[in-house]
Amino acid sequence: MKFGMNKLLTPFRIIVLSYIIAMAVFSILLYLPVSSLPGEAVSYQEALFTAVSAVSVTGLTVVNVSETYSGAGVFFLALAIQLGGIGVMTLGTFVWMVLGQKIPLSRRMLIMVDQNQISFAGMVKLMRGILFVAIGIEVVGALILGTYYMNFFDTAQEAYYQGAFGALSAFTNAGFDVTGQSLVPFADDYFVQLVNILLIFAGAIGFPVLLEIREYFNPENKQFRFSLFTKISVSTYFIVFVIGAAGLWLMEIGAYYEGMPWHQQLFFSMFNSATARSGGLSTMDVSDLTLASLLFLSGLMIIGASPSSVGGGIRTTTLAVMFLTIRSFILGRSDVKAFGREIHQEDRQKAFIVLSVFMVGLFFAVILIAVFEQANDIALMAIVFDASSAFGTVGLSMGITDELTFASQSILMTLMLIGRVGLVAFLFSIRAQDKKTPYKHPTERIIIG
Amino acid sequence: MKFGMNKLLTPFRIIVLSYIIAMAVFSILLYLPVSSLPGEAVSYQEALFTAVSAVSVTGLTVVNVSETYSGAGVFFLALAIQLGGIGVMTLGTFVWMVLGQKIPLSRRMLIMVDQNQISFAGMVKLMRGILFVAIGIEVVGALILGTYYMNFFDTAQEAYYQGAFGALSAFTNAGFDVTGQSLVPFADDYFVQLVNILLIFAGAIGFPVLLEIREYFNPENKQFRFSLFTKISVSTYFIVFVIGAAGLWLMEIGAYYEGMPWHQQLFFSMFNSATARSGGLSTMDVSDLTLASLLFLSGLMIIGASPSSVGGGIRTTTLAVMFLTIRSFILGRSDVKAFGREIHQEDRQKAFIVLSVFMVGLFFAVILIAVFEQANDIALMAIVFDASSAFGTVGLSMGITDELTFASQSILMTLMLIGRVGLVAFLFSIRAQDKKTPYKHPTERIIIG
Ligand SMILES: [K+]
Ligand SMILES: [K+]
Repeated sequence: MKFGMNKLLTPFRIIVLSYIIAMAVFSILLYLPVSSLPGEAVSYQEALFTAVSAVSVTGLTVVNVSETYSGAGVFFLALAIQLGGIGVMTLGTFVWMVLGQKIPLSRRMLIMVDQNQISFAGMVKLMRGILFVAIGIEVVGALILGTYYMNFFDTAQEAYYQGAFGALSAFTNAGFDVTGQSLVPFADDYFVQLVNILLIFAGAIGFPVLLEIREYFNPENKQFRFSLFTKISVSTYFIVFVIGAAGLWLMEIGAYYEGMPWHQQLFFSMFNSATARSGGLSTMDVSDLTLASLLFLSGLMIIGASPSSVGGGIRTTTLAVMFLTIRSFILGRSDVKAFGREIHQEDRQKAFIVLSVFMVGLFFAVILIAVFEQANDIALMAIVFDASSAFGTVGLSMGITDELTFASQSILMTLMLIGRVGLVAFLFSIRAQDKKTPYKHPTERIIIG
Repeated sequence: MKFGMNKLLTPFRIIVLSYIIAMAVFSILLYLPVSSLPGEAVSYQEALFTAVSAVSVTGLTVVNVSETYSGAGVFFLALAIQLGGIGVMTLGTFVWMVLGQKIPLSRRMLIMVDQNQISFAGMVKLMRGILFVAIGIEVVGALILGTYYMNFFDTAQEAYYQGAFGALSAFTNAGFDVTGQSLVPFADDYFVQLVNILLIFAGAIGFPVLLEIREYFNPENKQFRFSLFTKISVSTYFIVFVIGAAGLWLMEIGAYYEGMPWHQQLFFSMFNSATARSGGLSTMDVSDLTLASLLFLSGLMIIGASPSSVGGGIRTTTLAVMFLTIRSFILGRSDVKAFGREIHQEDRQKAFIVLSVFMVGLFFAVILIAVFEQANDIALMAIVFDASSAFGTVGLSMGITDELTFASQSILMTLMLIGRVGLVAFLFSIRAQDKKTPYKHPTERIIIG
């Protein structure tokens, strides 16, 4: 494949580089004196962490945003989140398009890669579709939340400011807040929680799915059928959501939920299950949960959202292929299928690679943080929780992030970067040119397990 | 495939059943009053846990063997370990053979499955070879250790008793001890440690490898070449051993090793790296290690030993196939090869399944134990360590095993059983009859990661 680019600057490498450049630029913007409130200077390390967390739409923080950043700072933060959420490449190309330039194939290739698409067709249309859908959902969310917030804030301006930031943060699954307390003040407000859960779903379910849903309602397209990708990722997303909520409920019914009315138990379970998959907002202090729940939440964070979404993790399709493969083995079948279609051998291979690299990466990240924090005596649970949160670009925390050494924070930043880029794209960025093996080696069986 | 057996009693199911029956029988034997020392009655639950731990050659204990069990009890324990180590089926067939019976094909099939062999050829020869090699190594080990122990024990009888039990425990990787302190008294005795490390290697490297090594030295067989299995499993085994020792050294150089002479650091690192892969003996209290080392040791326990060995874990070949697959992806290759041979697609698939099932199983086991121990406030690290130790049939412990509720101990017993049977064999035991899919479904690509 040739894209008229330098051989070393493959599309995947440009993607990774773009994220890194965006993070660097925003770290400087967030470090500017104008970005902080009077008397609240941030260190460059704090600004860098905030920028990486924002561009990767993770939401882990080392400073309290509402007490630290000025209006300008919050604006930069929102910009970084929007950029990260919709994808550095897509937004960059939009600007390019607005400026009246023709989009060369090489650049269209980039968006394709950034959104994880596998066909060339209708790239510009796709990108316009993404922006239209994303901004549409954000505006609707901002209006609903802002109008509702009029009950809580003194001025309409403040209410809509909070609503707009909240909708942006929820839809991009960024998990940042300008309230200083995330959604804890709304722990009893099921309307706000429901709107936030829906916004989190919309962002985490994947852009291709949103576009297919729009196409489904297009009266001109009578031939439309949902893709296997959409069927697998959406069903996996919601099955895990239900299992997550049910599991949390079972683990907390005799602990944190003790004495709560059923509807409160239901909403804590639902909200935590939704937010752990990449949202990062929270209606409670998660460290009040039992050890079992914290580990379970880490598992949900590791699973994460759909590919080509604002979320991270091993992604829904990887989990689905894993379970389909196990099921097919136990049923004594030689093929792996779902919804009457066979899963391609290469996709099974990719799922194996993603799972392996994610687990190995997380394992060594946790070990390195344990080494760096030896003097601080931090429990394994807290490290696993924050590392899963960073790698899954989730943003929930047991509250240790700002206490960590800068070395550990750098590990978290690396996890957030790779988590946002996505493991497949990241591996492609370090992948060598495709090699045709000159001849076929003889195959020999070995004993496994 | 027909073996003249009931359709429901497939070879794999018989294997699993045999282990369960052996565990049940030994739990009764170890519960007999004659098995305990005067005044040291064990509960049935303790006897059951000890039996499961012994037959699965794990070595986790809820009682102090030397202070609890009588001569008869220790004899039953040794028998259980020997049976578990060499494989219930192999030993059962040996008895059958000694009794002069002809071995029917159905029974030979069982040994093949128990030892994870993939060809029918020379089954009886194989089994005789296993017994010969195993008992030969144990006798040599017992003589060396027993003779050396004459320096430490008052009578030759006691010295050779300790030597024989020690050699059995090391070679079968059982990790039990009758000293009451494992090998801690020999923390400075590098000779004893070296003999134990070699015995652990011999047991963990896999019976097929031992037999191939014997064949290699057979002057009549000039055509002999080592199998791909042996090349991959042996090299992986020792690479992980070296990385394990180096990693532990790096993590403890500023902590537990502070102020120690270099040779002591070397031996602690080597011994822990060897024992964590399935041995279970120890020369120190592992809970004195740093959090990073404990997690690293858990990783080594999860990797475990070679297939068809006395050890457990995901096994060396699974790890190797995982890394070869990742490497091949990064190098831009479409095939996965090692030592000039291609890895069969089905073996890659099996490795994916083993890794997935192991990680998911371990994850839920840890969560369940956390639920059962909610009142006891046990740290995640201790639970992960003991669960990895049980699933990997290793036997190292941070010392919480006897404090756990019986519910948690039952989880550990389940892990030990499945760990000993091996994940592939276990999955085959619950697998349905092979199904030929009547027609091929169309393949559709999806987005992964
Ligand atoms: K997030
Ligand atoms: K063991």
